[in-house]
Amino acid sequence: MSRPSRRTDRLSVSILLLLALAFPAAARAQAAKADPLPSWNDTPVKQAIIGFVTRVTTEGGPDFLPVEHRIAVFDNDGTLWQEKPAVQGAFLVERVRELAAKDPSIKQRQPFKAVLEGDVDTLMEGGEKALMELFAATHANMPQEQFQAEVHQFLREARHPKLGVPYTKLAYPPMLELLRYLRDNGFQTWISSGGGIDFMRVFSEELYGIPPQQVIGSSLEEKFEQHGGRDVLWREPRVDHVNDKEGKPVGNDLHIGRSPVFVAGNVRSGGDIAMLSASQQRLGPSFQLLINHDDARREFAYQEKDGASLRAAKEGGWNVVSMRDDWKRVFAY
Amino acid sequence: MSRPSRRTDRLSVSILLLLALAFPAAARAQAAKADPLPSWNDTPVKQAIIGFVTRVTTEGGPDFLPVEHRIAVFDNDGTLWQEKPAVQGAFLVERVRELAAKDPSIKQRQPFKAVLEGDVDTLMEGGEKALMELFAATHANMPQEQFQAEVHQFLREARHPKLGVPYTKLAYPPMLELLRYLRDNGFQTWISSGGGIDFMRVFSEELYGIPPQQVIGSSLEEKFEQHGGRDVLWREPRVDHVNDKEGKPVGNDLHIGRSPVFVAGNVRSGGDIAMLSASQQRLGPSFQLLINHDDARREFAYQEKDGASLRAAKEGGWNVVSMRDDWKRVFAY
Repeated sequence: MSRPSRRTDRLSVSILLLLALAFPAAARAQAAKADPLPSWNDTPVKQAIIGFVTRVTTEGGPDFLPVEHRIAVFDNDGTLWQEKPAVQGAFLVERVRELAAKDPSIKQRQPFKAVLEGDVDTLMEGGEKALMELFAATHANMPQEQFQAEVHQFLREARHPKLGVPYTKLAYPPMLELLRYLRDNGFQTWISSGGGIDFMRVFSEELYGIPPQQVIGSSLEEKFEQHGGRDVLWREPRVDHVNDKEGKPVGNDLHIGRSPVFVAGNVRSGGDIAMLSASQQRLGPSFQLLINHDDARREFAYQEKDGASLRAAKEGGWNVVSMRDDWKRVFAY
Repeated sequence: MSRPSRRTDRLSVSILLLLALAFPAAARAQAAKADPLPSWNDTPVKQAIIGFVTRVTTEGGPDFLPVEHRIAVFDNDGTLWQEKPAVQGAFLVERVRELAAKDPSIKQRQPFKAVLEGDVDTLMEGGEKALMELFAATHANMPQEQFQAEVHQFLREARHPKLGVPYTKLAYPPMLELLRYLRDNGFQTWISSGGGIDFMRVFSEELYGIPPQQVIGSSLEEKFEQHGGRDVLWREPRVDHVNDKEGKPVGNDLHIGRSPVFVAGNVRSGGDIAMLSASQQRLGPSFQLLINHDDARREFAYQEKDGASLRAAKEGGWNVVSMRDDWKRVFAY
């Protein structure tokens, strides 16, 4: 009876190999089953995430979601990477410095003077007009490819002022694991951020595995027109869309066209409340994750002035992440 | 020597089975190799399509494209399905009829009267103001989900005035085969149309296999706000983006964020020239397809007033499809 048994063994190995090759995602998921989220402590939030993903991927179960409905949307600043300082803000300051090096006269002109001197009060007084002037000088009046080349260079050279490492080293490992875990379970992962769509697209694929077509953000108007003898996508100094607060469900609908099922944001400005609560209105299962920056030792502890995000989380029964208690580690560097 | 030989045979079969399971897309492509585009005549256009796809998917070849760069963009009206009449125009007329049935007074009011009487001259005189009034009455001032439910119902009930079949039966089989062929070769297929983004998303997935997040079109402004006691995506009676002519490369950049490699449009209004020529500016290989409606017998023969699309095709060396000569069949019904 040794021969059939050997044959059976060989058959099992072949089938396993076959399965591994045929369904790499499933095989990875299987391998990771011991712990798909190793940087998370074993707290109720982690259990809720795994429970939800298991429910919506269990065929025949009451909450099963066909793969085309598995859309997960993440805020970026403060949700996927640190936001003190906001990286796009640091880019803007750096660009103003470069402009001042080329043309020293702008050191005496507002709102540039205020930026160079870190004079927040004067900037605030300038209001929206000052802000648009800064965006026009640093983000607009150039072809799209030039802008993105400048962002690329900035990300390569710039360092976080306190932590001393490149900004792209400051993504949160627990969230990178969560993105991968969702993708391994058939989710399409998206970013929906108040940050600039063209700014984020420079690094989203390499850093998060999120391709440019799955990034939603604020945008300037663009025109396709002749500049320098050829047609280019020209960045106009006018705001097209502000992807923050009530603008987020609008941006999500424009880009996705179907309601996200898994939505994650963070506490700071209330910017994610609208998209988190919008996702709860869909028929069928949904999951809301809100990250609370309460880890002064490993990151920064900061709160929201009016506490609106945490209040909304309580009312909606959302899952609140305490970075201090729920995460084993905050940064990888 | 019979045993090793049998073993080799078994090994070959196993490897083939393994490959088929491991790479279903490749296996399908292999199976279809005899003829991936059976509804196309064996003319230079078909050969050019297959030659291009083979080149950009040949690993190690000079034109090889990593899968994330394989983006294909198709116009919709006149490229993927018939456009006489424009289906969204037929929807608008039907909606005006329904409004008139509920409120007969609008039969005497312009621009509704002109629509109901098919009085194109009066409509033209009304210009943009009249058009926006019609869009506001039929496409706006309601929640997104209500609008899409109305489109869904229209598509179920309406019939083409001459051909007598539902509009969704009037997609072109050669183009459906092309979409499938590109997807089988790792391309992500997109629509970029002057039509309404939310209109097309109702049928794009079922008809073309193109999910809503890969549809780009014209849009009205939207707001996320309270109506009837809950937050909804509300369609405002104001144009947000016109995805036609120079608006197409802009819409493509906003939604995709990377230059399409394969772009298809059609002759009628010059609406696709900008996105076709924009795709030629990318570094590396690209393919431009322009469909000419020259088949009076099987569809409709129509030309462009100024001939700009065919002229641009000649200058750019684009591939022009003669529906009469290059397609074995035009409709499936």
